[in-house]
Amino acid sequence: MPSEHVARRERLAGILRERGLAAAVVTDLVNVRYLTGFTGSNGAVRVCEDGSAVFVTDGRYGNQAAEEAPDVEIVVNRDLIGALASDTGGALRVGVETHVLTVDDYDRARKAFEGIDLVPLGSAVEQLRVVKDDEELDALRRACDISVQALDELLAGPLLGRTEREIARDLEWTMYAKGAEAIAFETIVASGPNSAIPHHDPTDRPVGRDELLKIDFGARVDGYHADCTRTVVVGKADAWQREVHEVVRAAQQAGVDACREGVLDTDVDALVRQVLADAGWLEAFTTGLGHGVGLRIHEDPFLSSPAPARLERRTALTMEPGIYVAGRGGVRIEDTLVVTDGAPELLTVATKDLLELA
Amino acid sequence: MPSEHVARRERLAGILRERGLAAAVVTDLVNVRYLTGFTGSNGAVRVCEDGSAVFVTDGRYGNQAAEEAPDVEIVVNRDLIGALASDTGGALRVGVETHVLTVDDYDRARKAFEGIDLVPLGSAVEQLRVVKDDEELDALRRACDISVQALDELLAGPLLGRTEREIARDLEWTMYAKGAEAIAFETIVASGPNSAIPHHDPTDRPVGRDELLKIDFGARVDGYHADCTRTVVVGKADAWQREVHEVVRAAQQAGVDACREGVLDTDVDALVRQVLADAGWLEAFTTGLGHGVGLRIHEDPFLSSPAPARLERRTALTMEPGIYVAGRGGVRIEDTLVVTDGAPELLTVATKDLLELA
Repeated sequence: MPSEHVARRERLAGILRERGLAAAVVTDLVNVRYLTGFTGSNGAVRVCEDGSAVFVTDGRYGNQAAEEAPDVEIVVNRDLIGALASDTGGALRVGVETHVLTVDDYDRARKAFEGIDLVPLGSAVEQLRVVKDDEELDALRRACDISVQALDELLAGPLLGRTEREIARDLEWTMYAKGAEAIAFETIVASGPNSAIPHHDPTDRPVGRDELLKIDFGARVDGYHADCTRTVVVGKADAWQREVHEVVRAAQQAGVDACREGVLDTDVDALVRQVLADAGWLEAFTTGLGHGVGLRIHEDPFLSSPAPARLERRTALTMEPGIYVAGRGGVRIEDTLVVTDGAPELLTVATKDLLELA
Repeated sequence: MPSEHVARRERLAGILRERGLAAAVVTDLVNVRYLTGFTGSNGAVRVCEDGSAVFVTDGRYGNQAAEEAPDVEIVVNRDLIGALASDTGGALRVGVETHVLTVDDYDRARKAFEGIDLVPLGSAVEQLRVVKDDEELDALRRACDISVQALDELLAGPLLGRTEREIARDLEWTMYAKGAEAIAFETIVASGPNSAIPHHDPTDRPVGRDELLKIDFGARVDGYHADCTRTVVVGKADAWQREVHEVVRAAQQAGVDACREGVLDTDVDALVRQVLADAGWLEAFTTGLGHGVGLRIHEDPFLSSPAPARLERRTALTMEPGIYVAGRGGVRIEDTLVVTDGAPELLTVATKDLLELA
């Protein structure tokens, strides 16, 4: 599979040319990985307006960088910023990630880049990352496949009487066994009244009969994160559980169906909230509707952000409305999907029927 | 158990008075946790020279903050810096963590703290964290106990033919089952030639007969990290494996024995390197000797840093010399210990004999 890193750097170079910047010094490690393939814990890259790039890391990572980023010039130097400030060939203006760079590192950079104007690059690389390329979509699909396969196995086994913590560890173990390199985020397993807490850490509480069980989880593959939630009943569902689940399901499906290239994210958010409002449950939806997902579990765009933005093709998003009633319980249904010019591609393919399990 | 957070804030207030600062705005989340107990992902605290404190977080964490930080004033506001800039009562100079704060956040802070001089706090809180209090030592002991118990169980079972990845997951699973809240860092399981790589990600390579198996791992308990490495032979050790293991063991023991209140860390480093040099193996030791450990897996002090510093009582440290021979194999032995005025307290109590296992 050919690397997409050269193309990604070329897209950044295009932005630099538009803005009249000679180069960008990228220090956010996730952005560095996106632009080079380097996965270590210390490194920075300078991308020039002609698309050429220099990557700097310390001695621990010299060999790893050569393997992971074969198509970029590699310099080994503990002083990352100092190394990137040399050989700038008459540059006048260089972009830096002032939203990531610390004040102290920025002061060092200003000394190192003496005579050069350092200007905020803003979230230019994060904005490139909103639209996924083939390599990224492939990794996301694999992460989501592993996740839903692991969920299927979990739900086929016994649940009643097991603790939230045991269920979380079991699910994570299965994701690892199926090829996850890591868990995408701390697994949420919330039973009974705990299901009313949107982000609940698994406890030693055993799952009781006829209780809601909310599971929010995902695998990480090649750096890309899956994010999926299903809520089931362990035993027989009562009328209230059925109602809440059905409302969330309808709202979630409306949200999924509305995600399409060119649609305003604020419109998707408003639509889902309208479905919940029509059913009388809007006040019980207390979280954001969804977020971009990729090399970070939470990244641009954020669906419930107040600033309207049009959805772009190849954007990976979560869609995760919920209803949370303190002391009683809650339901969330969440998929990871990819925006297209038609119906979205659903990456977390698992039933959204209310399952009643043993 | 009474909380130590008030005492920690009082120690910071003492530093503020020494430096003529009216307050410190602490934004590093680990430092925030240290000073307040808050474990969420968004929050900041202002500690004043009189020891009083205001903590700010967003709406997601209001209840959690009240539970975790009961002895501090809590404000819920999405604009953390803005909220901490109000009611500063005529302050002239306020310390900020310029080594952590981003350039953009610092610019916002300068506007919010109009008329107040923002000065670098430096790593004042990190330096307080070097000396552990009773609550911290207790958590470190529990994390290390869980870790070595899990290692004992792993080594009592079969190893030959299992993959590095399977062994890593098995060990992690056992740590969770024994009460770890998380894995302290990505577990290293390195077999045969892979043991020559100091920081090796577990692969699907099965462990072969008569091979070295290096395991670097730890549990996290109440935010505190254990860090331990042992290297065994799966089968019968040959003369080379025995020699390398014996040299590392002697060097590691010399390092442990040398750690005592008031000793220069550079002297400890030089001593261990001398043991390795005398045996003819110094060039094969390519990493740092050890590091502080606590709320972060790597924190001050760093034993192989060039600036000499005296070891302080109640400092938790790792001691981890190794010998790494590319293509052939490597051995590392690592303990977590606590500096005292006598022999250090060893937290990772597990044999350092060369085990030959099935």
